[in-house]
Amino acid sequence: MNSQPTFLLLADGDFSPMTSKTANSVIRFLPDRVVGVVDREHAGKTVQEVLGFGGAIPVVGSMKEGLAQKPDAVLIGIAPAGGRLPDEWRAWLAEALDAGADLWSGLHTFLSDDPLLAAKADEKGCTILDVRKPPANLPVAMGLAREVDACVVLTVGTDCNVGKMTAQLRLVEGLEERGLKTRFVATGQTGIFIEGWGIAVDAVVADFIAGAAEQLVLKAAPGADVVLVEGQGSINHPGYSGVTLGLLHGACPDALILCHQATREYIGEYRSAPWLKIPPLTDYIKMYEMLGNAVHPTKVIAVSMNTYDLSDEEARAACAAAAQETGLPCTDPVRFDAAPLLDAIVAAARG
Amino acid sequence: MNSQPTFLLLADGDFSPMTSKTANSVIRFLPDRVVGVVDREHAGKTVQEVLGFGGAIPVVGSMKEGLAQKPDAVLIGIAPAGGRLPDEWRAWLAEALDAGADLWSGLHTFLSDDPLLAAKADEKGCTILDVRKPPANLPVAMGLAREVDACVVLTVGTDCNVGKMTAQLRLVEGLEERGLKTRFVATGQTGIFIEGWGIAVDAVVADFIAGAAEQLVLKAAPGADVVLVEGQGSINHPGYSGVTLGLLHGACPDALILCHQATREYIGEYRSAPWLKIPPLTDYIKMYEMLGNAVHPTKVIAVSMNTYDLSDEEARAACAAAAQETGLPCTDPVRFDAAPLLDAIVAAARG
Repeated sequence: MNSQPTFLLLADGDFSPMTSKTANSVIRFLPDRVVGVVDREHAGKTVQEVLGFGGAIPVVGSMKEGLAQKPDAVLIGIAPAGGRLPDEWRAWLAEALDAGADLWSGLHTFLSDDPLLAAKADEKGCTILDVRKPPANLPVAMGLAREVDACVVLTVGTDCNVGKMTAQLRLVEGLEERGLKTRFVATGQTGIFIEGWGIAVDAVVADFIAGAAEQLVLKAAPGADVVLVEGQGSINHPGYSGVTLGLLHGACPDALILCHQATREYIGEYRSAPWLKIPPLTDYIKMYEMLGNAVHPTKVIAVSMNTYDLSDEEARAACAAAAQETGLPCTDPVRFDAAPLLDAIVAAARG
Repeated sequence: MNSQPTFLLLADGDFSPMTSKTANSVIRFLPDRVVGVVDREHAGKTVQEVLGFGGAIPVVGSMKEGLAQKPDAVLIGIAPAGGRLPDEWRAWLAEALDAGADLWSGLHTFLSDDPLLAAKADEKGCTILDVRKPPANLPVAMGLAREVDACVVLTVGTDCNVGKMTAQLRLVEGLEERGLKTRFVATGQTGIFIEGWGIAVDAVVADFIAGAAEQLVLKAAPGADVVLVEGQGSINHPGYSGVTLGLLHGACPDALILCHQATREYIGEYRSAPWLKIPPLTDYIKMYEMLGNAVHPTKVIAVSMNTYDLSDEEARAACAAAAQETGLPCTDPVRFDAAPLLDAIVAAARG
């Protein structure tokens, strides 16, 4: 397999600034390796026109048009609720294998378990990479991550899809510039696509969530000053909170960065039927610190604000309001200078 | 399969009042269906001599002796950390199949995936029941359990293995006597062995922990006044807290019963290398209520105390001290009258 493969992203029917999280992050962090996006709704536009970033990467209306760009792999760029494979896509993925493209997927349904796709991949000599397939023999966590020398920083959120991974990836370079050897630990499909290693902790058997996080931190920590662990979900998310807490207790972070999207009012409102109002940031700080401290001393050191749908002025006001409410440094590290977050991490790592 | 099968319990090397949790509960709740226990260490004793209950059920030193009692099934009665199959047992289980016994297992490693055992079961017409094999197509929880009419009561713990399932099973009859239609929801292997249905929530893929709990409550609630949901783990357990929180948010309990073992000082101290001190009960009440309330209004209504290793006098003192500390009714429902817990549930269900 090419070590820097090019991708055609499949995001049909769900390509937008908030819903197609995997596609958007791959575009954001690996723009030179994306040859196109398949989405019938926005076919004919550029990615820039749909997302507000991503430049001239074309959105195409069929797998055939996309495959004409000769991608090394077709990458599943959206995460349907439950993570399973829409039936309609099976034929498209077979078409991709017929054209000699590998398949990269983070769905809970493993493409390599699909008899049609597995047989075709075999026949064509293509690879199916299911990044959510967990490693064998994960341990039950024993709190071992609390003993590493590196300063472990976990992003925690007010909901899914607020920017927990993006914030971390934005900080690596700045920390390195400040002289701290920094490792990013991917705990979800998108992070693994970008970083090249990791474990999708939401896909492991429930007893081993914390064990997977522990193993990742123990692998990343040697020689590092700072380990940035990608957070998942939210501690009050009705569906995913178990993953969030397992990650918190398995990774034993020394410091937490609370991530929020400024205009989000309800848990999961970027999808359907929201009913659970997002409480104040100070409530999240209490919950994360109380539960984190129950296993390893930790505190929230900064707030990372996602302001993608605000004007510059509104964004600055949202960050100022969060700083005021929490008494913590706050910025949007995608939009503004990440210095407030970087300074907070440097202080935690040297403190 | 016989609907009331008899069991030979395999608990070799780990048969004791605190470690062999599954074996002990099957003995406690289905004593007439247990023909013997395989454990080389205590071979020749009765179960009563090892556990302090269980009467004349014999402990035998080999599978051969146990199979001579003609059990319908061999049931794995201990849960090794991580839930995997010790290599040594494979030959014993093959021996059981050769004798025509079914296999019942709650290990994470599915016996039915073992080529030797699967082939032999097939050859002998025996059944392998892996109760930790999760059902297909579990949903991501959406908070649907908050809408059921029944009063949902979840047991929550200060650690694993403090009596969360036992407390619930002790309460069913008393609640029925008080005129409340009561359903028990099994969420772990032992509860499923005893009740005959349920989902082992610690064995589902992490994203679906809460979804499994939600599905169980939605199935049990129609026609019930009270649904007693078996709790798992502890909210501050370094390995299993994710399962605990997913269950709390998926089941949407209206009331919680906090379970503790009076003499336990450290998380997991019944196993090895304990390091995490169990905080005061009032800390647990804060953590469970804060996190539970984040999704659905709930409160701790009583404390269930496990006093198996205390004298009667010490046990009464431990219950009184917990009641004093928490301001809640407290008893050991195995040892004493369960009335304080029953009254608290009746008040919650009618309140």
